[in-house]
Amino acid sequence: MIIVFKPQAQKKDIQRVLDKVEKLGLQTHISQGENTLVVGLVGDTTRVDPKRIEVEESVERIMKVSEPYKLANRAFHPEDSVIDVSGVKVGSKELTLIAGPCSVESKEQLLEVAHRVKESGANLLRGGAYKPRTSPYSFQGMGSSALDLLVKAKEETGLPIVSELMSEKHIEEFNDKVDLVQIGARNMQNFDLLKEVGERIKKPVLLKRGLSNTYEEWLMSAEYIMAHGNPNVILCERGIRTFETYTRNTLDLQAIPVLKRLTHLPIIIDPSHAGGKWWLVEPMAKASVVAGCDGLMIEVHNDPESALCDGPQSLKPDRYDDLIKKIRKLEKAL
Amino acid sequence: MIIVFKPQAQKKDIQRVLDKVEKLGLQTHISQGENTLVVGLVGDTTRVDPKRIEVEESVERIMKVSEPYKLANRAFHPEDSVIDVSGVKVGSKELTLIAGPCSVESKEQLLEVAHRVKESGANLLRGGAYKPRTSPYSFQGMGSSALDLLVKAKEETGLPIVSELMSEKHIEEFNDKVDLVQIGARNMQNFDLLKEVGERIKKPVLLKRGLSNTYEEWLMSAEYIMAHGNPNVILCERGIRTFETYTRNTLDLQAIPVLKRLTHLPIIIDPSHAGGKWWLVEPMAKASVVAGCDGLMIEVHNDPESALCDGPQSLKPDRYDDLIKKIRKLEKAL
Amino acid sequence: MIIVFKPQAQKKDIQRVLDKVEKLGLQTHISQGENTLVVGLVGDTTRVDPKRIEVEESVERIMKVSEPYKLANRAFHPEDSVIDVSGVKVGSKELTLIAGPCSVESKEQLLEVAHRVKESGANLLRGGAYKPRTSPYSFQGMGSSALDLLVKAKEETGLPIVSELMSEKHIEEFNDKVDLVQIGARNMQNFDLLKEVGERIKKPVLLKRGLSNTYEEWLMSAEYIMAHGNPNVILCERGIRTFETYTRNTLDLQAIPVLKRLTHLPIIIDPSHAGGKWWLVEPMAKASVVAGCDGLMIEVHNDPESALCDGPQSLKPDRYDDLIKKIRKLEKAL
Amino acid sequence: MIIVFKPQAQKKDIQRVLDKVEKLGLQTHISQGENTLVVGLVGDTTRVDPKRIEVEESVERIMKVSEPYKLANRAFHPEDSVIDVSGVKVGSKELTLIAGPCSVESKEQLLEVAHRVKESGANLLRGGAYKPRTSPYSFQGMGSSALDLLVKAKEETGLPIVSELMSEKHIEEFNDKVDLVQIGARNMQNFDLLKEVGERIKKPVLLKRGLSNTYEEWLMSAEYIMAHGNPNVILCERGIRTFETYTRNTLDLQAIPVLKRLTHLPIIIDPSHAGGKWWLVEPMAKASVVAGCDGLMIEVHNDPESALCDGPQSLKPDRYDDLIKKIRKLEKAL
Repeated sequence: MIIVFKPQAQKKDIQRVLDKVEKLGLQTHISQGENTLVVGLVGDTTRVDPKRIEVEESVERIMKVSEPYKLANRAFHPEDSVIDVSGVKVGSKELTLIAGPCSVESKEQLLEVAHRVKESGANLLRGGAYKPRTSPYSFQGMGSSALDLLVKAKEETGLPIVSELMSEKHIEEFNDKVDLVQIGARNMQNFDLLKEVGERIKKPVLLKRGLSNTYEEWLMSAEYIMAHGNPNVILCERGIRTFETYTRNTLDLQAIPVLKRLTHLPIIIDPSHAGGKWWLVEPMAKASVVAGCDGLMIEVHNDPESALCDGPQSLKPDRYDDLIKKIRKLEKAL
Repeated sequence: MIIVFKPQAQKKDIQRVLDKVEKLGLQTHISQGENTLVVGLVGDTTRVDPKRIEVEESVERIMKVSEPYKLANRAFHPEDSVIDVSGVKVGSKELTLIAGPCSVESKEQLLEVAHRVKESGANLLRGGAYKPRTSPYSFQGMGSSALDLLVKAKEETGLPIVSELMSEKHIEEFNDKVDLVQIGARNMQNFDLLKEVGERIKKPVLLKRGLSNTYEEWLMSAEYIMAHGNPNVILCERGIRTFETYTRNTLDLQAIPVLKRLTHLPIIIDPSHAGGKWWLVEPMAKASVVAGCDGLMIEVHNDPESALCDGPQSLKPDRYDDLIKKIRKLEKAL
Repeated sequence: MIIVFKPQAQKKDIQRVLDKVEKLGLQTHISQGENTLVVGLVGDTTRVDPKRIEVEESVERIMKVSEPYKLANRAFHPEDSVIDVSGVKVGSKELTLIAGPCSVESKEQLLEVAHRVKESGANLLRGGAYKPRTSPYSFQGMGSSALDLLVKAKEETGLPIVSELMSEKHIEEFNDKVDLVQIGARNMQNFDLLKEVGERIKKPVLLKRGLSNTYEEWLMSAEYIMAHGNPNVILCERGIRTFETYTRNTLDLQAIPVLKRLTHLPIIIDPSHAGGKWWLVEPMAKASVVAGCDGLMIEVHNDPESALCDGPQSLKPDRYDDLIKKIRKLEKAL
Repeated sequence: MIIVFKPQAQKKDIQRVLDKVEKLGLQTHISQGENTLVVGLVGDTTRVDPKRIEVEESVERIMKVSEPYKLANRAFHPEDSVIDVSGVKVGSKELTLIAGPCSVESKEQLLEVAHRVKESGANLLRGGAYKPRTSPYSFQGMGSSALDLLVKAKEETGLPIVSELMSEKHIEEFNDKVDLVQIGARNMQNFDLLKEVGERIKKPVLLKRGLSNTYEEWLMSAEYIMAHGNPNVILCERGIRTFETYTRNTLDLQAIPVLKRLTHLPIIIDPSHAGGKWWLVEPMAKASVVAGCDGLMIEVHNDPESALCDGPQSLKPDRYDDLIKKIRKLEKAL
């Protein structure tokens, strides 16, 4: 962290700031320019809130030099992390393929989809039990019974299960039944949930990017989970909010190489939510794979026209099968 | 809601959609143009998820005509709602003035600020007990003991208390100690918390706008709380995220007249978080008042340079006093 | 400007960067931390493109300390600039009131509006001759004949004229007929036009903010005009593009106090284009005045229902008159 | 286009609107619901400005059904357009590879880069002669002499030339020397330039997307050029402005499949400007190709450390060569 003082800063005010910084456990390196005094801070700056220094009248601005996250930082953990989800190695050379319906609607629906995506090569089954819906009048998910159906589908297909946790009151249930616990985009900065997940969830966590959160904020949310005890975090880009309204969100594929540089955690892409239209899934899934993602999370429904949630962005099983075949060819070419 | 069919849509596919719509309890009005079939849906469309119709291949697009919220909608409740916060009438002709420190840090700090803002004319005292912080390494608030200090400050000054609820596990405590329960920007779409607040919080709720949420999404979150049993919702604009980084966020004052048209709920402005700089508070507070807001929420700290949180945006008590005097003059001119 | 080197940077690579910087005419101040070498650059950094240093492999990042604009910078010109527009002093204590139709449509329309806004207290008359329209099939303005009608209206009312210049081919015509030359939002970074305006326009310039441009980019565009010879620049905020679509754009009133701090140039607010709805104009105009703007630019039309352009955001003359009366009361209270 | 009237709309006001619409040459189809009157407009609605109807007090809202562009619309031109750029068929099965330095800096630089990218397989040479720079103090390009160097490079390598036109005063020069005339992102809504380019430029045009422009606005700008006489428009996505600041812009690859659906015009991706960092170019270029783009525009410099412009995002010739080899493999796999 670097402090730039105002040209007119008084000696005693500068000293006051330096004393404050030293109380926070940091050393200072002073560089006196013609008009400007610049002070570099040395030590563990992740624990220093820059606003506590910025507030001083003598300070012109504060600039961060190092990232404010540590556990998620590739600088301190150069090798890629491989996260084991009940035997599926996320972040390894093999692509992780998560597929399944947006929400679990019935035993028939779920089992049919589960069998079909398994045949196509998926290695994890997704299905929403508790659904975050913008309207209180929309279908809110089947809840607990959906988790039981997912367990049943896992028994039949062998596919480990991914589902979204929306409240700490379901933590026990998720620890029992779910293999990969998803934190949705709208809860990315629900810090109390992140702490609980860090402390109490015994399974790996899939952390979706918030709709308007920066890479740094996203990694800080991963850091919350990790600092509270759960090191097994997988990141998932699912589109960000921009001015463009033709698509549901704008998929940010630059996130893949950027995160590979900033962090050692695996990164999964969800092209279904990003575009909100099924015909965008194939080109964006292929693009994600060649850009270097560790996996894909794709919504598949046996009858999208009857889906209770997000039908327009769901692939039919045949189309999913076709997509995976195309992706296998690309993988060979890489 | 209006359905526009594709020019090439087949009769049987159109019929299938009309049947689906009628099963959802709506009537249809058909308008056949030269190339395009347009169907208007009549009935309670708030309970219909447009995606369930948009998913049909024969459908070109769906257009909403009426707003998807009802309880929060001014169309069904033309008079302004006045919300009683332990005697303070929010939404009445008198401006609601919420003031206090970002976070409670000590008894001395809180009592000093409380007395000072009371003298200046504030009618509600704010103070953070549980703090949503981007970094797990930043000060997270004093927690429960902060609420006790707030109760103490209320006893001394008579000012009812506003504090942010971040987790359902604190609901009882908030019901006991807090007069106005704040839901922060990052939890605006934490739907499980909204439901719990609707069902179990016995006090009015201050619902902040999410950093990148539209007016409609914001009102849908109010609708969640109301539909789950708590009609006493106050809205709070605190700046939205844009491309501009000089300020912390961009304060959207158009929200005031827009919300006055869309909803009967009161609207409060928080200029402290929007700009992130204390010198932006005065001009934006004055602007908010003449634009027609029902109140202001402003951070005041007796010693911003030592604040553990958000010092740069906090006013000193003298500046707050001066601001309120200026606002009183404006009120007279209106 | 400050250079932060990578921890692993080699001595010879660092030297190479220092040599490059010195060739650009700057002095260097070196500060060696435990792991990080930080170098402050002293001298006129406005002429140094930071990317030319950022490109070096040994460099971790570049941080700007001082603003990249000089002529527009308040630091070098502490007093407010007052710009004389044919006798109207923009930036003085008196509020500048620009009013008139979006586009000039006929002699009758223009003269009626001109007389009405003059009676209400407007001191400058706006009217579009050349119109920037998203669609090539929309009305593109009356062109040159509109300027003649504006001159006629000026003769009758004494109000100096404001109109938008879209192409360098009209520069002579604008120098002859127009008192304040507007550069529209979509041309804010049309750098060739800015240069021409700086060199050849003999009248003051009203520079609108681009739809997604930062304060700094906006001031850099003002700097273009000033550096090319025309120091008389007035800034105009007219709303920025965000994710919210209910309003045409989001009006950023924080721009007023921020620009007052960064620059000495006057700032005008255009609430008509920002919201796109006539009923947003009054509350936002009042808010702008108490936030400290130097003037207002408001669209007024005698018959908005027949307007060829932007009818929904135009005030009728009676409403404009009423608004100005309210603003006069606010001015007294300030 | 569909008009939804307010529930309380009076008969005479409705009639007034219907008369207005019919005067604009459109037919009306009336659909009377329980509370709401909905009127569909039939005819060529591209020439109707929706605001002219929205302005009426009796109107609740206007909804567009068909796109406002025609010449660029795939609905009226189902086959892909193939644009001939001096023999290079853009939009055909063969990928268009545009490469070269951000700005032309010297004969040696340009010729070296030109020969190298030609060897790697590029089929068009880019080079900036006139440069749009945020700061008036940055290098503004070599101007006319750069165009002469580009012609020289074309003679030596056979590669047709791409360069950015910033002002109508250079139109003759560009018609003489340049094969593909680029309109930059900041001029995407410089409507006077678009008209001139449509009327007077005899070569194909590469139209970059504005930093915060929607797909529809972009296609409307293409429509400007086409409606003014030049049908040979190629679109170029180069990143949009979002809240994320780690990258220069956010590359929107969903643009590829979306535009393939909306328009018949070819689409090129520029990953260099989008990310602003050379190491983002390879993954994004590969992603673009598998997502279905018609070509890539990539900045290549023989000595990025000495580049006068955009060095950090430039590839060295060896890296470009390596990238093209990888892309060839992907093409085979598709």
